Amino acid sequence: MRTAVIVAHPQLEDSGTQRFLKEATTSLRRIDWHELKVNSSGHFDAVAEKKFLKDKKRIIFQFPLYWYSAPAILKQWMDEIFDIADVAWLQNKELGLAVSLGQPLKEYRLGGREGIALSSLLSPFQAFAKRLQMRLMPLFIIEQFVYQNDRKHQELLTKYQQFLELPIDFNFDQSQSWFENKLKEMMKEIDVEDKKKLELILEGYKERHEQLQELTREVSLLRQEDDQHGEQ
Amino acid sequence: MRTAVIVAHPQLEDSGTQRFLKEATTSLRRIDWHELKVNSSGHFDAVAEKKFLKDKKRIIFQFPLYWYSAPAILKQWMDEIFDIADVAWLQNKELGLAVSLGQPLKEYRLGGREGIALSSLLSPFQAFAKRLQMRLMPLFIIEQFVYQNDRKHQELLTKYQQFLELPIDFNFDQSQSWFENKLKEMMKEIDVEDKKKLELILEGYKERHEQLQELTREVSLLRQEDDQHGEQ
Repeated sequence: MRTAVIVAHPQLEDSGTQRFLKEATTSLRRIDWHELKVNSSGHFDAVAEKKFLKDKKRIIFQFPLYWYSAPAILKQWMDEIFDIADVAWLQNKELGLAVSLGQPLKEYRLGGREGIALSSLLSPFQAFAKRLQMRLMPLFIIEQFVYQNDRKHQELLTKYQQFLELPIDFNFDQSQSWFENKLKEMMKEIDVEDKKKLELILEGYKERHEQLQELTREVSLLRQEDDQHGEQ
Repeated sequence: MRTAVIVAHPQLEDSGTQRFLKEATTSLRRIDWHELKVNSSGHFDAVAEKKFLKDKKRIIFQFPLYWYSAPAILKQWMDEIFDIADVAWLQNKELGLAVSLGQPLKEYRLGGREGIALSSLLSPFQAFAKRLQMRLMPLFIIEQFVYQNDRKHQELLTKYQQFLELPIDFNFDQSQSWFENKLKEMMKEIDVEDKKKLELILEGYKERHEQLQELTREVSLLRQEDDQHGEQ
């Protein structure tokens, strides 16, 4: 499954967030990073853009929220490239939005400073996906990147990579296997001493994974029972 | 009260709707028609644009719905011109949206083809107005202009002029007085024969206006009684 990341940012070179996210994709093999830029006549080459998208299964629109919506360049790209007839080749592709916020997410709730939910502000993308019969993924939100500490950044990196690579409704098991694969890939690139340490970590990780799988199964059985009894 | 009509249309010269709306403003004295166009470097002159807006009490964003939102050029204009500090001079101005639709309005309802309300799709403008402490006017919707007959066009013309000229929460009385003024203005520009006919019409109109005013008062009294008894 190939994924296109369409990056729309008015001052891309100044964006620490976008630099971080780009860095996060360098180790991923099936990601095509695509920064939007108009040509010398101020437009996009619709034929070339469509060609680029055709073999992608998943398309990510990635942008900072600008006046409660995507920056103008993404809208221009959409306006110039797509029309309703494109449903023919867009249908069944997945559409994801990776949106970075300068304010805390809680401001976009009832009673928050903005008081309007992101899901409402971004609803034009929902309508867009619906009309072109694409499947809209759950929003991926990057909240105040510059205020996040290193641990938060590490978490973001993992979640972002999973957002790009895992199936939409990935389960716990898929997430764990994804981690194992990442560890294995890392092992290929390090020296012998570190390798031994990592092998031990991986060993322990797999063991824990199996234990966790069993626990998950038990919990889901208990939940099923609960659901059967608890419904009113 | 001066009003700015900011027109955003990717193919303005081909738009019969925009031509019609422009024509509708030629007889209005306090309207400044402003068609968005980037300069040779592909941008807007923020200083000039702000200067243009400063003395306007009401600002109308007028555009066709393009992929469930405003065309890119309006977003570019917003992105390049405004920042949060502009609340200082924008607050208390009125913001109106005049949106033309290629599809029937009913498609933007639950169960309609799009299934998402215009008020949700256009909620970024609500957040924009809120943040800059502008007052958002009720949406002005132009539904499938090309399929409307002459009578509908005439109705649209009147409603549009009222949207531009009347106070936000105009009442029946203000609407009637507005009509009288329009008739009087028309009278100045026609020959003597027609003038006499129009004077008769105006006479009758004023009389009906007074009768209607009285009826309105009565109805509102009855409603008040109803409200007092009917609340549970």
